[in-house]
Amino acid sequence: MKNNLLIAHGGGPTAVINASLAGVILEAKKHGCIDAVYGANYGVQGILNKEFIDLSTLSNSDIESLMYTPASALGSSRKVLEEQDFKRIFDILKKYEIRYFFYNGGNGSMATCDRINKIAKEQEYDLRIIGIPKTIDNDLAAIDHSPGYGSAARYIITSAMELACEVESLPIHVVIMEVMGRDIGWLAASAALAQGRGDRGPHLIYLPEVGLNKENFLEDVKEMHEKYGGVLIIASEGLKYDTGEFITNKGSDTGFVDGFGNIMPGGVGEALSNLIVKELGIKSRYEKPGLLGRASISLRSDIDVEEAKAVGEYAVRSAVEGKTGYMVCIKRNAEIPYSSSLELVDLKEVACKKKMFPTEWINDRGNGVKREFIDYLMPLVGQKLPEHVNIRNR
Amino acid sequence: MKNNLLIAHGGGPTAVINASLAGVILEAKKHGCIDAVYGANYGVQGILNKEFIDLSTLSNSDIESLMYTPASALGSSRKVLEEQDFKRIFDILKKYEIRYFFYNGGNGSMATCDRINKIAKEQEYDLRIIGIPKTIDNDLAAIDHSPGYGSAARYIITSAMELACEVESLPIHVVIMEVMGRDIGWLAASAALAQGRGDRGPHLIYLPEVGLNKENFLEDVKEMHEKYGGVLIIASEGLKYDTGEFITNKGSDTGFVDGFGNIMPGGVGEALSNLIVKELGIKSRYEKPGLLGRASISLRSDIDVEEAKAVGEYAVRSAVEGKTGYMVCIKRNAEIPYSSSLELVDLKEVACKKKMFPTEWINDRGNGVKREFIDYLMPLVGQKLPEHVNIRNR
Repeated sequence: MKNNLLIAHGGGPTAVINASLAGVILEAKKHGCIDAVYGANYGVQGILNKEFIDLSTLSNSDIESLMYTPASALGSSRKVLEEQDFKRIFDILKKYEIRYFFYNGGNGSMATCDRINKIAKEQEYDLRIIGIPKTIDNDLAAIDHSPGYGSAARYIITSAMELACEVESLPIHVVIMEVMGRDIGWLAASAALAQGRGDRGPHLIYLPEVGLNKENFLEDVKEMHEKYGGVLIIASEGLKYDTGEFITNKGSDTGFVDGFGNIMPGGVGEALSNLIVKELGIKSRYEKPGLLGRASISLRSDIDVEEAKAVGEYAVRSAVEGKTGYMVCIKRNAEIPYSSSLELVDLKEVACKKKMFPTEWINDRGNGVKREFIDYLMPLVGQKLPEHVNIRNR
Repeated sequence: MKNNLLIAHGGGPTAVINASLAGVILEAKKHGCIDAVYGANYGVQGILNKEFIDLSTLSNSDIESLMYTPASALGSSRKVLEEQDFKRIFDILKKYEIRYFFYNGGNGSMATCDRINKIAKEQEYDLRIIGIPKTIDNDLAAIDHSPGYGSAARYIITSAMELACEVESLPIHVVIMEVMGRDIGWLAASAALAQGRGDRGPHLIYLPEVGLNKENFLEDVKEMHEKYGGVLIIASEGLKYDTGEFITNKGSDTGFVDGFGNIMPGGVGEALSNLIVKELGIKSRYEKPGLLGRASISLRSDIDVEEAKAVGEYAVRSAVEGKTGYMVCIKRNAEIPYSSSLELVDLKEVACKKKMFPTEWINDRGNGVKREFIDYLMPLVGQKLPEHVNIRNR
């Protein structure tokens, strides 16, 4: 009888999901009670296909390289599991003598963990299931912040800072940067950390938690354009008008619904840009870094990398101690200097739940965020943010 | 009688235009024959407005910071000069006792240098004018490569490498990355340096120098999708169909013509993405980092920074020696190890000329580039490119 370990990735990758993977492998090596260490090739789909990658044979140098490899090194999937799949997954885990199962994903993946945990208990099979959190959207409940968010935020902040210099130095248009996050504004909001540099943008930030009022928007853009010439706007991809209408151009529908049934919005940056040209007669363009943001290793947060690795290690230690049916949680202990600790939270508290951006952290005009959010995010983006000299405003 | 120096920026910034500025300021400090050092506030528009920034007072630490500051620290403009403007600029230069004038720009800016140089000669005013090259498009004639190109290329290569990992790890769609460069393919072509990593993309690269054949395109995408699942395509923003037709969605027209009359294309990534969804029934999305690419300090090339600074220094030394009416040129001396030297080229050889991407470096199918280009670009992207481990293909 073996005691094998399996780790799988679910949903969209982050810049640090492989750091959690490295944490799991490194910690597993320390425990004699664990035999083989497997990775599911392309998530739950890989489990259903019985495709396992033997991670026990990885060299230390390969494990180290994982820390610097973007996306999911195991492969992930957006497969929506049907009723019979949970039982099939359980049967496969049992057949391969998996006793430790780690699923690294978001709220959908945590629901999957919970289902399989229930089956294992019913079948009286000793399986320890621990969920490892990750999402750039930062919408997992119960946790202070999700691994992956700090790095994606740092990418957005750095890009917004650089883009703001560009827009300021050639002030010929209104530039919109569209930011990922579906209907959740956490990531778009992060651009606020690029603010506070005098006339440099970003000047306006719009989150999907508050509907966009078209008249106010055009008024704000006009005012900023008169004041600064070049204007930088951050818009979340899931932004809607306050009428409930999607902000999108006809013809830009990608027909794209992800595996969990999430509608992938498209075209907010372009639609707002066209609106500005049409209604205000001001030149406008948009940038849409999209997936580049969650794939970026170069611009990620060192704190996020550390925490993601620690979360993977903690998951293994907890399972070895006999824990099952939990997700690893990051708890914030102090702001300055920042410190955090790890704990376990029942899967039921996170499965399928969504943590929205708090509307009380959005300003009254709906075009920016409040100090509370800056204080929340600052420690998570890691190493010192870049500084750019200004030789004009002296 | 003073002997002042003026430097101005023209057109779109690059990640190293401030490095050339730092080179000019540092070199000028070494020459007692130069009195004040001024920067034009927002390019030729700043000269016409008589708005000068005193650069003589900059601290060494500010000059050092310029090296790490994106976009144009002086500000730039896309103003199209009219006939009377050249004379007005000359009169202002004379009035402010400018004896050394450096214009850091592309082929349009070099034409401006040439015009003002002619007026100075006619008026027998001792003005030394040297053009300092820059463009992310790499379309300046006579020069081996333009400062700014290597850094923009490195951004595209790094982003394409990271995005390729993302697309491979969650192979649910065809992803198109749209790359800047107007009707010039140099920058989009650079993504080829992200190739050669087994199944990892980018799988297809399309440049505007060859028209896109719609049938071949769809066939290639279909084949790659069957083979890899996730497909990464690089498309230049200026790509057209081989029928001459623009590849764009109705409704995505930005109405955007830059100051030099250049039509700014828009929507290639989106239009091709929609075409794939419609014609092949395959999920597709696009990323458009756009201006982020030329603003990125974090992902730039160290060789490019060094050369840009050296070009600024060389411009000053040449002017002090009495040279006028030239642009500084980078000449490639050797490939491995790479070495280059600087020389002067007559402004007439570069003014308003365009160096297209050589069609003989594009493969027969028009969906990729040849080895000759890789060899050309490799030394220009600087420090070692990132390596990403692959633990699946073993």
